[in-house]
Amino acid sequence: MDNFVYQNPTKIVFGKDVIKKIGKSAKNYGKKALLVYGRESIKKNGVYDTIVKSLKDNNIDFVEHGGVKPNPVLSHVKTGIEKFRKENCDMIIAAGGGSVIDTSKAISAGVKYSGDVWDFFVEKARIEDAVPIIVVLTIPATGSESNSGCVITNEETKQKYSAGSFLLFPKVSFLDPTVTFTLPKEQSAYGAVDAMLHISEGYFTTKDIDSIITDNYDYALIKSIVLATDRIMNDPKDYNARASFMWTASLALNGGQSLGYKGMEFINHVIEHSLSAIYDIPHGLGLGILFPGFLKHLIKKNGEKAIKRIVDFGRNVFGMELNESRDDAFKVISKIEGWFNEIGVKTKLSENGIPEKDFDMIADNANELGKLWGWSYTKKDVLEILNFQK
Amino acid sequence: MDNFVYQNPTKIVFGKDVIKKIGKSAKNYGKKALLVYGRESIKKNGVYDTIVKSLKDNNIDFVEHGGVKPNPVLSHVKTGIEKFRKENCDMIIAAGGGSVIDTSKAISAGVKYSGDVWDFFVEKARIEDAVPIIVVLTIPATGSESNSGCVITNEETKQKYSAGSFLLFPKVSFLDPTVTFTLPKEQSAYGAVDAMLHISEGYFTTKDIDSIITDNYDYALIKSIVLATDRIMNDPKDYNARASFMWTASLALNGGQSLGYKGMEFINHVIEHSLSAIYDIPHGLGLGILFPGFLKHLIKKNGEKAIKRIVDFGRNVFGMELNESRDDAFKVISKIEGWFNEIGVKTKLSENGIPEKDFDMIADNANELGKLWGWSYTKKDVLEILNFQK
Repeated sequence: MDNFVYQNPTKIVFGKDVIKKIGKSAKNYGKKALLVYGRESIKKNGVYDTIVKSLKDNNIDFVEHGGVKPNPVLSHVKTGIEKFRKENCDMIIAAGGGSVIDTSKAISAGVKYSGDVWDFFVEKARIEDAVPIIVVLTIPATGSESNSGCVITNEETKQKYSAGSFLLFPKVSFLDPTVTFTLPKEQSAYGAVDAMLHISEGYFTTKDIDSIITDNYDYALIKSIVLATDRIMNDPKDYNARASFMWTASLALNGGQSLGYKGMEFINHVIEHSLSAIYDIPHGLGLGILFPGFLKHLIKKNGEKAIKRIVDFGRNVFGMELNESRDDAFKVISKIEGWFNEIGVKTKLSENGIPEKDFDMIADNANELGKLWGWSYTKKDVLEILNFQK
Repeated sequence: MDNFVYQNPTKIVFGKDVIKKIGKSAKNYGKKALLVYGRESIKKNGVYDTIVKSLKDNNIDFVEHGGVKPNPVLSHVKTGIEKFRKENCDMIIAAGGGSVIDTSKAISAGVKYSGDVWDFFVEKARIEDAVPIIVVLTIPATGSESNSGCVITNEETKQKYSAGSFLLFPKVSFLDPTVTFTLPKEQSAYGAVDAMLHISEGYFTTKDIDSIITDNYDYALIKSIVLATDRIMNDPKDYNARASFMWTASLALNGGQSLGYKGMEFINHVIEHSLSAIYDIPHGLGLGILFPGFLKHLIKKNGEKAIKRIVDFGRNVFGMELNESRDDAFKVISKIEGWFNEIGVKTKLSENGIPEKDFDMIADNANELGKLWGWSYTKKDVLEILNFQK
């Protein structure tokens, strides 16, 4: 178990009808908010009205910065920074999923910086100050509501890069599972895959494979994701399943999922960032395509060690009876890929309109980000993963 | 899954050799510390020297307040408050286990209060201010290093009562697993039981038995406690086992273990507080005695519902093959009690010098605290639990 430092200051307010408390909470951070959101969904499901009423009841003024799109883009971050400054806002309210929260985080750091906000993403500058963020989560998946990172796509350079700082932890995040009742099935499925991968990346790449608590913690989270998602697919209004998934997705990337793991890498995420930067496919879908290929690649690359890890995963997450053999490790991969397919995630690149002729270009793009993150992979590894899922 | 609010601001600095960083950390909170500790162990295992050197290197002055004993007492809290004030300290450094940390928390609130610090424990006053606390944990068990509560015994009234406030979260807690290598076997065992009970109390008393993530999270924690403790009993210097247990014991009472649970009660803890207030036995031992009796009582009280919960516990923690039957629930209880015995925890009251003639007095004492905490139990319930373990 490796040394670690862990601190997560975000206050989580969780459950039915909690969003109406946002105005009272916002009073701690000033008088005027930039309200960041996506498209129409928060107006349809009542979240927008609840927020606006609560802000008005508590004399919090606000200006809107809607229109965040999935795979949020840098240009929209920049217009948000200008609006925040021009309107003299004190805080940001992020009402949406990971894209909205990540846009808000980038704006939050950007308004306090005189240079180009993209500097934070290419490691040209460090975030030294940021304005407070309050989150109303509507799409559980990325965990951004309880962590300090954000991912933004530079649409000019086709780079989907990340930035982070302790200053970017939201002050308060409101999580009401009932607002997820109306999420489309595919969005619920992509969220499940995303959350599962946030945990699995560390589990499968750690060089420390004797971390009893973190392994068992991770099994518990992934098992909960599978159990809850199966129930959600069957009944989108199953409150306890929605609630369980919403909280698990937060735990899946709040830092606790990888404590003690050593030298882990976000391999699937690096490659996925290329897929969604180039083809604008949903992040969870991209991860669902890559993960089975990554595991097959892992067996080829690490042999026995990878087999043991994959078999342990199958035993503890799916309760499978397995031997530590190559065949049985492949059974686990089939189980995972089969489960993805069951919940509607198509796991072949060709099924998702990504042709084999592009693999070389994808691998180059991924390798560029991978190098920035200091990964141990090569273009050849990426091509191998892509070829497993062609 | 019930609504909840969760926030835990404590910074955890975990791993080999982390304690030497304490001086640098202390500089954030002032220039002079009250150094609270127990008896000789921190001088024997090098922790004292490491702290003192680091404080000196960073120009942090300190005065000592040693002599905290297990089941820490009010009088020693009061002399600590006087010393802190007289010496114009800025912060408290708590170097020890739960007793030392709890004493430090009580002092931390007491120095900022003009009345009797015991007021906080009998709900006569609320904690409105407190001085910063930094922890160096040497005995993993109570979770006090990552929560906001404390338990103190008023030796005059024989009351072991608790107090809490968001202000009592330690600012930073240093957890170095190597300092636990020299813990006596029985102390490791009692710590394991204590941590297991922190999780089990909520699991077995919640009125919400459809909280997928919290149930699986709790199974993961308890399973990790059992796996790590078995390894520790076999080899007290097994670093990864010590590390895993140390972190699990923190997770076991940092708030995360019961999120979404509804109407839970700390039944075993209430009764144990009477046992250790009256007989001064170790807290973990008291809990080990009571837990099997509590589970037997639960079956008598709640029938099918209790059986299902106990059987699920057996399946998920111990991997037992079970039916939902009364007999199989009793198999789980035997498994737990047997495991306690294996690691050296004697689970009968008579084996621990507590005679049947005292049961009435114990039950009265427990019922007094239970009523203060608003419990649903009666003196009769307590007597039944005690009689199961006589």
